[in-house]
Amino acid sequence: MQIAIVLYDGFTALDAVGPYETLGRLPDAETVFVAERTGPVRNDTGNLALTADRTLTDVPSPDIVVVPGGPGQESQMTNDTLLDWLRTADATTTWTTSVCTGSLILAAAGLLRGRRATSHWLTLEELKPFGVEPTQERVVFDGKYVTAAGVSSGIDMGLTLLGRIAGDEHAQAVQLMTEYDPQPPYDAGSPQKAPAHLVEMFRAQAASA
Amino acid sequence: MQIAIVLYDGFTALDAVGPYETLGRLPDAETVFVAERTGPVRNDTGNLALTADRTLTDVPSPDIVVVPGGPGQESQMTNDTLLDWLRTADATTTWTTSVCTGSLILAAAGLLRGRRATSHWLTLEELKPFGVEPTQERVVFDGKYVTAAGVSSGIDMGLTLLGRIAGDEHAQAVQLMTEYDPQPPYDAGSPQKAPAHLVEMFRAQAASA
Repeated sequence: MQIAIVLYDGFTALDAVGPYETLGRLPDAETVFVAERTGPVRNDTGNLALTADRTLTDVPSPDIVVVPGGPGQESQMTNDTLLDWLRTADATTTWTTSVCTGSLILAAAGLLRGRRATSHWLTLEELKPFGVEPTQERVVFDGKYVTAAGVSSGIDMGLTLLGRIAGDEHAQAVQLMTEYDPQPPYDAGSPQKAPAHLVEMFRAQAASA
Repeated sequence: MQIAIVLYDGFTALDAVGPYETLGRLPDAETVFVAERTGPVRNDTGNLALTADRTLTDVPSPDIVVVPGGPGQESQMTNDTLLDWLRTADATTTWTTSVCTGSLILAAAGLLRGRRATSHWLTLEELKPFGVEPTQERVVFDGKYVTAAGVSSGIDMGLTLLGRIAGDEHAQAVQLMTEYDPQPPYDAGSPQKAPAHLVEMFRAQAASA
């Protein structure tokens, strides 16, 4: 089984590495980071680079596709090279997945039309013009399409999908070895839980962007 | 303020990226990935590479050091180049931190002697020969030394330290924007919670390694 994690300029690192460190522990799977060109791909802040080991062309038919999000997603939504690759790959995938605003790229490729999906809480409404029904769940399964909410939710998606594919026990073993027993120091991880003025501040910033 | 995240062959990706994506959102901070040599550094599975943008020598006096863990930590524990750099850097850091078995590297450098610290649950006892008192807490503060348990705990450490440095509100804002509202599909993230036979299996594997 082959898992392709897509990289592009301006991706968010944890979006890619969360699923990598969980789903990527699938037995007998090959995980490969892919991009239009091989070599280092810079993230949203510019001070981290992950290596794309293969080009999109090198990996035409992965079993699982993972599309991370990040502010760089916006220009990818009109990048025909990536969108065409996604449509072609999706024709034979077992699972097509995204984290955060990665779902907007899948939506722009037309792959989520008529389906339920999630995204970063600030961009949920942007799914609608693509015929996608947004939902606030953290990990959303609709057929073979699995979308996760913002950034860190890719860890929960990766473990959930790992359990579906390899069984609960294998997923629990990966949870144990990654010591994923989260103890956040605050309870501010969603717009429902965070201080209201922070939610408003980010919504205002996004509206004026 | 400068944050140096140390890379070495065989590091675990999430150990580095968890603190990066949280603590690295410190206002006005420069985060830099450092290693003995610049260029791609391969992780524990070999199918992910993060770029070291600067050498250790290039970054002699960071304000914060983050040392990730991973199976590659073992050979680093006798790598005088890294240990010397850590001792020199530590002389002027505000915070010296680790994730997972990264604490064993700090311990080997002599930096944790007489202190409480944590590590991956499978390697806690290995702290003792270095005069370190192991503890099972997820994030351990002892003076300016902050150690986190296995792999994913670096996210909790990063947020906690971010709150200490930049204030609760800033840390909550980062938690909200990374949508860190964890919902693991299982409750198996620590040896106390995971199925006992999985814990025993990994202990037996570690003992025979």
